[in-house]
Amino acid sequence: MLIGFCGLGRMGRPMAANLVAGGHSVRVWNRTTGKVPEGAVECGSPAEAAQGASIVVTMLADDDSVQAVVLGEYGLLKGMAPGAIHCGMSTISMQLSQRLADAHDAAGQRFVAAPVFGRPDAAAGRKLWIVAGGDAAALDECRPLFDALGQGVFNVGSPPQASLTKLCGNFFIAGLIEMFGEAFALAEKAGMDAPRLSETLARILFANAPIAVGYGSRIAATQFEPAGFAMPLGLKDVKLALQAAEELKVSLPVASILRDHFLESLAKGRESWDWGGMAAVLRESAGLPPRR
Amino acid sequence: MLIGFCGLGRMGRPMAANLVAGGHSVRVWNRTTGKVPEGAVECGSPAEAAQGASIVVTMLADDDSVQAVVLGEYGLLKGMAPGAIHCGMSTISMQLSQRLADAHDAAGQRFVAAPVFGRPDAAAGRKLWIVAGGDAAALDECRPLFDALGQGVFNVGSPPQASLTKLCGNFFIAGLIEMFGEAFALAEKAGMDAPRLSETLARILFANAPIAVGYGSRIAATQFEPAGFAMPLGLKDVKLALQAAEELKVSLPVASILRDHFLESLAKGRESWDWGGMAAVLRESAGLPPRR
Amino acid sequence: MLIGFCGLGRMGRPMAANLVAGGHSVRVWNRTTGKVPEGAVECGSPAEAAQGASIVVTMLADDDSVQAVVLGEYGLLKGMAPGAIHCGMSTISMQLSQRLADAHDAAGQRFVAAPVFGRPDAAAGRKLWIVAGGDAAALDECRPLFDALGQGVFNVGSPPQASLTKLCGNFFIAGLIEMFGEAFALAEKAGMDAPRLSETLARILFANAPIAVGYGSRIAATQFEPAGFAMPLGLKDVKLALQAAEELKVSLPVASILRDHFLESLAKGRESWDWGGMAAVLRESAGLPPRR
Amino acid sequence: MLIGFCGLGRMGRPMAANLVAGGHSVRVWNRTTGKVPEGAVECGSPAEAAQGASIVVTMLADDDSVQAVVLGEYGLLKGMAPGAIHCGMSTISMQLSQRLADAHDAAGQRFVAAPVFGRPDAAAGRKLWIVAGGDAAALDECRPLFDALGQGVFNVGSPPQASLTKLCGNFFIAGLIEMFGEAFALAEKAGMDAPRLSETLARILFANAPIAVGYGSRIAATQFEPAGFAMPLGLKDVKLALQAAEELKVSLPVASILRDHFLESLAKGRESWDWGGMAAVLRESAGLPPRR
Repeated sequence: MLIGFCGLGRMGRPMAANLVAGGHSVRVWNRTTGKVPEGAVECGSPAEAAQGASIVVTMLADDDSVQAVVLGEYGLLKGMAPGAIHCGMSTISMQLSQRLADAHDAAGQRFVAAPVFGRPDAAAGRKLWIVAGGDAAALDECRPLFDALGQGVFNVGSPPQASLTKLCGNFFIAGLIEMFGEAFALAEKAGMDAPRLSETLARILFANAPIAVGYGSRIAATQFEPAGFAMPLGLKDVKLALQAAEELKVSLPVASILRDHFLESLAKGRESWDWGGMAAVLRESAGLPPRR
Repeated sequence: MLIGFCGLGRMGRPMAANLVAGGHSVRVWNRTTGKVPEGAVECGSPAEAAQGASIVVTMLADDDSVQAVVLGEYGLLKGMAPGAIHCGMSTISMQLSQRLADAHDAAGQRFVAAPVFGRPDAAAGRKLWIVAGGDAAALDECRPLFDALGQGVFNVGSPPQASLTKLCGNFFIAGLIEMFGEAFALAEKAGMDAPRLSETLARILFANAPIAVGYGSRIAATQFEPAGFAMPLGLKDVKLALQAAEELKVSLPVASILRDHFLESLAKGRESWDWGGMAAVLRESAGLPPRR
Repeated sequence: MLIGFCGLGRMGRPMAANLVAGGHSVRVWNRTTGKVPEGAVECGSPAEAAQGASIVVTMLADDDSVQAVVLGEYGLLKGMAPGAIHCGMSTISMQLSQRLADAHDAAGQRFVAAPVFGRPDAAAGRKLWIVAGGDAAALDECRPLFDALGQGVFNVGSPPQASLTKLCGNFFIAGLIEMFGEAFALAEKAGMDAPRLSETLARILFANAPIAVGYGSRIAATQFEPAGFAMPLGLKDVKLALQAAEELKVSLPVASILRDHFLESLAKGRESWDWGGMAAVLRESAGLPPRR
Repeated sequence: MLIGFCGLGRMGRPMAANLVAGGHSVRVWNRTTGKVPEGAVECGSPAEAAQGASIVVTMLADDDSVQAVVLGEYGLLKGMAPGAIHCGMSTISMQLSQRLADAHDAAGQRFVAAPVFGRPDAAAGRKLWIVAGGDAAALDECRPLFDALGQGVFNVGSPPQASLTKLCGNFFIAGLIEMFGEAFALAEKAGMDAPRLSETLARILFANAPIAVGYGSRIAATQFEPAGFAMPLGLKDVKLALQAAEELKVSLPVASILRDHFLESLAKGRESWDWGGMAAVLRESAGLPPRR
């Protein structure tokens, strides 16, 4: 397949490389040049990356950048062929997801929302989980692409529903970070060994699921740099969940706590920390230093 | 081994039966008579159950009942031989755990706190996880007993630390219940299928850990009866975690939310529901009926 | 003075009438026609209302309507004379307040933010409190207008600071509503008379301040209709406070609770209730009916 | 009247002095000696202070000290004459209030709960507000005593209801502290003058009620020492409110936040600060130093 790929950040670059390795022809575009995976063709605009592609992937930081890349002057909407599929793998709002579906539909193109779970090492190792929403035929056509990128795909409905599923997932992870932060502050003040507690809970409660093991051990060790997923992105995703909840008139009390704690982390200048570092504010509330 | 066993409730009865099945001689006592597992000997008081036993297990509902059984007129303290071990498997406060350790020590006896994770079916199937705290030699002596009851043991330090580990674990489970409640209310108002979302998140985030699969699926289905672990017990354990946090001067904002939601559930007359039913209050906050 | 006046809702209409009564010539515009106070001249657009006016007042529902009236095709920016003052009395975001200041400045006009405290009866009775921000000379020129509308003016700095002061004030009122809700639910379940408790607290704590007496008595009586200030406006203002806090990186945990409870009220279809009716969700959490 | 008086702390001492100044014969007892107001007679035990008294006042720190003074070996229960009145002016739990009523009733004595609002300067200036609960005849008999101590009395029902009213009042004050803390952190980061904001809000919202003016100005100035009402007492009263709510099955989300913030203050070693200093944790969450 000829695949366009926009966004070569910490996640996008290894993903694009895996598409090349999977035998696909890949035309890439990034806001800044020079990060092109070997074997991919660099293009000067999203529209150019979309030329002739049956599927164009976007893997970008937030709603604003996705809007610019899709709806901007040299955006995908102008470059994609009729019937081509835009496979949006970024974590975006339900609203933008719906808006993109509508815009592509009006242009005779198709939109699939397929956000991913996994950090950069999972992207490199083809271990992403993909949550896909869109037309069944379009999802089928994306299948080879998904196979080259991840370890499994869940079809969850429409594009906004896929976006919401991803937001729910990140809400859970942020909630785990919070609970680890609360529990470890408590344990440390009781004279316990936080890494030991982390191992115990990860095994008993979570069958050693990588997310529980990974976040638990890093938070227990107060090891928050370098960031796999940076603090401002954590705040962004919690805000998107709260925004969806506001439109649907649902109260999410735990999400509000998470939002407060990410804000506090940023107020303390921790932009470059991993979002797991949000747990440090729980240590400070308990009178402990942010890191051991 | 000759083992005493006090408390034949939903958890204690299958546990005592497994000790019998494991080849041990078991002397049991329960507040109400007539629930004796086959092969066990019924006794008239905790002290009597402790006669000649090298280890006496307690598996009771709360601090008050443990205090009565241990420190009461015909309690364990009076019935246990010098050097015998009281293996307390109930979920109790850190303070009581320390107090029992001190009391048994003063009486020339030993105390091990060994609370368990698992619902009645796990107790029956010898699938409990055991979190043990106490003297290393005493823990070794309890090993055959643990092997007859569970699938694994974690030595986590002193008796109060074992109690705190258990409280942290239940805090995590209650937090999961809350987050499932919030996420499913949101998903349902977005037109999504909550059971499908539950499966997706349990697989991606939690490697299909039984706790995530079990609570997720029951909450998604709003199936809250019969209770495996009843609502008032959920409130009790969250309160014990908050009490420990208060003494150690740690704030647990998520635990306070959980406390509020368990209180609300009881205010609405849901004493007989499983604690997973706490998620129903999130549905109601979103304008949905408590059950589908 | 020749005064333009845009927005003849529940607050704006009595305010415009008071300006007429104060001897000013008043040119009014409203989105819908036919609500013109006697003695005022009706105009076909905001720009037309601004013709020849030294001061133009806006008293509108939210950021969107203010933007439309000021920056729209026949908006104030086009109709106001050089040096004329736009006196914005609506409750708006800090950002819009700054943006209006900048836009008027660029057009050679002046902007004063002067949001008001008080419900429609206070507007009618010239009992509003005015919180004003802007250039000192402009504030002086607005003085006769303020005298015709309210019982006192506080100069608090720049336009966005005036807007923030108003948002803080509404945050306090919403917080009072919440606390009355919590306290009265508790009192009612203790068999106490909520109106009596309201009187006691209003006197002892708040020197019978009208806000405490008014909200306290209405909430105690569960009298939530007709609305003096409707539920969606309450949610709007709490959201504006949270938005300001987010930009300034400040966490407002009580404001998040308020937001959740307004959302819950709307999820339950209480759009037409006074925002004091938010307290009903506290009754429901306690297992009481929303109204007595 | 012959009045017994137990508890000569920061509140009790000026109150006892006012009773002497009001022409009453006063027999005092305090845990530590040497703080006796001029004209009062020092006694060696609560029972001795109660000898011959028609009314005995207790003004003590918490439930434990009240229990000791009333129910202890040389306690009031043993020293009071039949028909004498115990007027409990401490802030205590609903449960203890009921228990004291029952105990005095069984002993043929009477109990009135009459907790007070006001700080030590209000106690000295006879400006306390008194919230009284008990038998109507007993309340009448206490009237001269109340007149010598405060500026007004509210009869609110039974003893536990008087205790709950006081707890509700302190919950409101703590809630105000929290809201001032949130609002001032926000204002300070917006470049505003917190004392000016305090004055504005106190005037507009609270008719310059002393509580709003006093706490607002102290918190705006971050002036937290010396304590008029110390941090641990603030935590104690919030906990009593939460305990009452728990028994009555009512959720108090704002009270839970207050509890967390008092705990955080104590975790940071602020035992000697006024409870208004709890607002400092909001400053820290916003990245500001605890005091300016």
